[in-house]
Amino acid sequence: MHANIKVIAFDADDTLWANEGYFQEVEQTYYDLMAPYASQAELSRSLHETILQNLPLYGYGTKGFILSLTEAALVASGENLPGTLLRKILELGKRQIDQPVELLDGVEEVLSALRPRYRLVLATKGDLLDQERKLRKSGLMPYFHHIEIMSEKDEGNYTKLIKHLDINASELLMIGNSLKSDVLPVLKIGGYAIHVPYHITWAHEMIDHDIDDDRMAVVANLRDVLKVVS
Amino acid sequence: MHANIKVIAFDADDTLWANEGYFQEVEQTYYDLMAPYASQAELSRSLHETILQNLPLYGYGTKGFILSLTEAALVASGENLPGTLLRKILELGKRQIDQPVELLDGVEEVLSALRPRYRLVLATKGDLLDQERKLRKSGLMPYFHHIEIMSEKDEGNYTKLIKHLDINASELLMIGNSLKSDVLPVLKIGGYAIHVPYHITWAHEMIDHDIDDDRMAVVANLRDVLKVVS
Repeated sequence: MHANIKVIAFDADDTLWANEGYFQEVEQTYYDLMAPYASQAELSRSLHETILQNLPLYGYGTKGFILSLTEAALVASGENLPGTLLRKILELGKRQIDQPVELLDGVEEVLSALRPRYRLVLATKGDLLDQERKLRKSGLMPYFHHIEIMSEKDEGNYTKLIKHLDINASELLMIGNSLKSDVLPVLKIGGYAIHVPYHITWAHEMIDHDIDDDRMAVVANLRDVLKVVS
Repeated sequence: MHANIKVIAFDADDTLWANEGYFQEVEQTYYDLMAPYASQAELSRSLHETILQNLPLYGYGTKGFILSLTEAALVASGENLPGTLLRKILELGKRQIDQPVELLDGVEEVLSALRPRYRLVLATKGDLLDQERKLRKSGLMPYFHHIEIMSEKDEGNYTKLIKHLDINASELLMIGNSLKSDVLPVLKIGGYAIHVPYHITWAHEMIDHDIDDDRMAVVANLRDVLKVVS
């Protein structure tokens, strides 16, 4: 990557620490709880419909997810959800909010290697309090010059970020696991991106076309970022 | 106020637009819905206990409020909440998230008068998406140089804000309705504050002592801010 990068921004969920796996665990528990009402396939379809329908209203993050889980359960139960199940769903949500933060392989090594030469930024979307809590638990705070939590990772919010950092788009490199949120909008505003795929991806973050851009690189794991930037 | 103020920061909820009233309306609807189970006094006590208990986990904002409302209803119903009531509570939440934004008296006049001479900032706490949505609906975005949404309005986050704005604490004036969130922490870090009481205050935002500080003023309504700063 032959560029004059000044700031390297990292996505957090599923780039620095595990996240989607926790959502999928909660979903599996939900399917097990609701098994008397419908098949897993039906429950999954209706749950994801509810989540997407509520996304503009609830946004990303665990609280909206649990509200959608509750609503989907109510529907699946024929508007007659037993109190014991409602209780279990609410508890499931609290446990998920307070989930442990498990760093992915190579995170500290990569941050330590890059910090002397770049301003490092954390750029994540989701619930403000959830993300601050995870960052605190991660112990990674000292690596970052700036933390940006956005309601949506789109071109507008990335443009605000580079203005705030007082850099040009061509001086920004974004690293993350989502083509839709971490790569495409950054390329579109003129920045650089490295895609580090994670082994599971939320369907909502998938895109249906290939990207071919010389301002983008793909690496197999975070450690390999050091082969592209150094 | 004889100070060298460079930035004036405004709280949003109940300072620029009505908010607490919507929460109280929803609470009243909840008491009416749950009247078969308990008295309003009992329902209110247990609801506020649940909200405060969940605050560290859920933070401020409507989604956490609705999750707490659901949990309190489940408890009040003896862990046996009818589906019809659960549905009504979830709908209540959605309506509240999408509430209209009603500007308080004098807001545009005050912002217009101050904008030519100060950098204006919006400094609010709560849910990121909720606050961005309200700001968009308010039409006030063009007045502000910067929007800061915090998970908690404490000294640490105000200190980050002044660093970000590249000013000293003594160059910041914060205007808001909450002594606890808008006034005290700003005075503590060395800034200035104007308290504009709102006719209703959430119990959680109340403090149990008087403040006597020459870096603080109290005005009866937002318009009177112009008598203190000009």
